[in-house]
Amino acid sequence: MKKVAVILSGCGVYDGSEIHEATLAMLALSKNEVEYECFAPDKEQYHVVNHLTGEATQEKRNVLVESARIARGTIKALNDIDINEFDGLVMTGGFGAAKNLSDYAIVGENFTVDEDVAQVIRDFHAAKKPIAALCIAPVVVAKVLGGRVTIGNDKATAAVINGVGAKHVDKEYNEVAVDEVNKIVTNPCYMLADSIYQVSLGAEAAIAAMLGLMK
Amino acid sequence: MKKVAVILSGCGVYDGSEIHEATLAMLALSKNEVEYECFAPDKEQYHVVNHLTGEATQEKRNVLVESARIARGTIKALNDIDINEFDGLVMTGGFGAAKNLSDYAIVGENFTVDEDVAQVIRDFHAAKKPIAALCIAPVVVAKVLGGRVTIGNDKATAAVINGVGAKHVDKEYNEVAVDEVNKIVTNPCYMLADSIYQVSLGAEAAIAAMLGLMK
Repeated sequence: MKKVAVILSGCGVYDGSEIHEATLAMLALSKNEVEYECFAPDKEQYHVVNHLTGEATQEKRNVLVESARIARGTIKALNDIDINEFDGLVMTGGFGAAKNLSDYAIVGENFTVDEDVAQVIRDFHAAKKPIAALCIAPVVVAKVLGGRVTIGNDKATAAVINGVGAKHVDKEYNEVAVDEVNKIVTNPCYMLADSIYQVSLGAEAAIAAMLGLMK
Repeated sequence: MKKVAVILSGCGVYDGSEIHEATLAMLALSKNEVEYECFAPDKEQYHVVNHLTGEATQEKRNVLVESARIARGTIKALNDIDINEFDGLVMTGGFGAAKNLSDYAIVGENFTVDEDVAQVIRDFHAAKKPIAALCIAPVVVAKVLGGRVTIGNDKATAAVINGVGAKHVDKEYNEVAVDEVNKIVTNPCYMLADSIYQVSLGAEAAIAAMLGLMK
C-alpha cells in the first residue's frame, strides 16, 4: 500500500489550509487506497482571520493545533516526519501556504519559505518521490525546487513563479501540470474552480497524476 | 435549481462540525447541481477543544464565526434563515451537533435542543421539505420530530433515540434510513465509517435519498 504525507497549514482558507481542498485531496487518496498521514509546522499562525467578517483578530493560534481539526486529531509536527515512510508529498492550498508555510502573501515576490517546509520539499525531491501541490501551494514548491507548475492562469502569480526560476504553465481547473523531470504535479483548485465539485475534479486529477509518477 | 440549507455547528469534530462530513455533504450537493447555503447559530461554542491533545482549552469561540471556516466565509446566522428559499435541510455531524446544537454530549438522555435549531427543524418538517442528518445529528432531529432514523448500530445511542419517541434502525456506513412519512434521511458517516472514502459514500447516499424526497 502506498503512503503519502500531507502538509497542512492551519484550518480555514484565509489563515490556514483551505478546508475543502485538504479534505478532497485526502478523499482522492482514500479512494485510491493510498494511506496518508498529516503534518504541520508546530508554530504560531501568522495571524487569525475571522472568516465571517474577513478581518484579522487579536487571537493567537498554532498551525499544528488548528491543522489537527482537519486531520481529526491524527497529525504530527512537521519536524517529526521521516520521509522514508512515504511515497509522496501533498501540499494543499489556502492562505496558510502563503502566510504560514511561506510569507508570500505578506511580502510578495521576494518571499521566503519556512525552512522546515523547504527541507521536507527538498528531501522528497532528492528521493525522487512525487510532490503534488494544489491552489497557491505551487508557489512554495516553485521557490524551493524551480520546475514547471501551474496555479491556473493568474498573470501576477505566474510572473512571480517565473521570477523565482520556475516555469508557469496555464491550466484549467480540471487540468494538471505534470513536471516529469522533477516529479511535481500541480492543479489550480480554488484559484479557478467555481464550485466544490470542480475542486474535487482537480484534486482527483492531481492525485491520479501523482500516483502515476510513483516508482 | 434546487437549493438546500446546511446547518453547521463550528469547525472541527470535537467541538464543532465534523469537517469531512460537512465538506462531503456539500460536495454531494454540488455534484448533483443543488445550490446550498450555510447557516450556524450565532452563539458561543460550548467549549473549545485542542484537536491535537483532545483537551478542552480556556478559549472562547463563536459557532457562526468558526463555521464560516468550512463555508469559506459564505454563511449566515441561523436566525436569518428564510425556509421558503430552500427545498431541504442538511445537518452534519461532529460533537458540535451534540454540544452546540443540543446538549446531548453534556447531559445525555435528558438533553434539549437549541430552540432556534429546533424551530428550523420543525419549520422544514411542517413545510414537508426533507431533512438529511448525518452521524450524530439524527439524535437532534429525533428529539424534535420523532421519526425513524439511524446513527449506525451503537446500542446506547439507539436507546436514547428510542427513548425520545423516535425509532432507531441499524444501518451500515453506506446505507440510508429513509423515513418517507416525516421526510427524514439519515446516515451514520463517521459513527461507522473507517475512512474518508466511506464517509463520502454515506454522504452521497444520504443526499441522493434526500433529493428523491423533494417535491
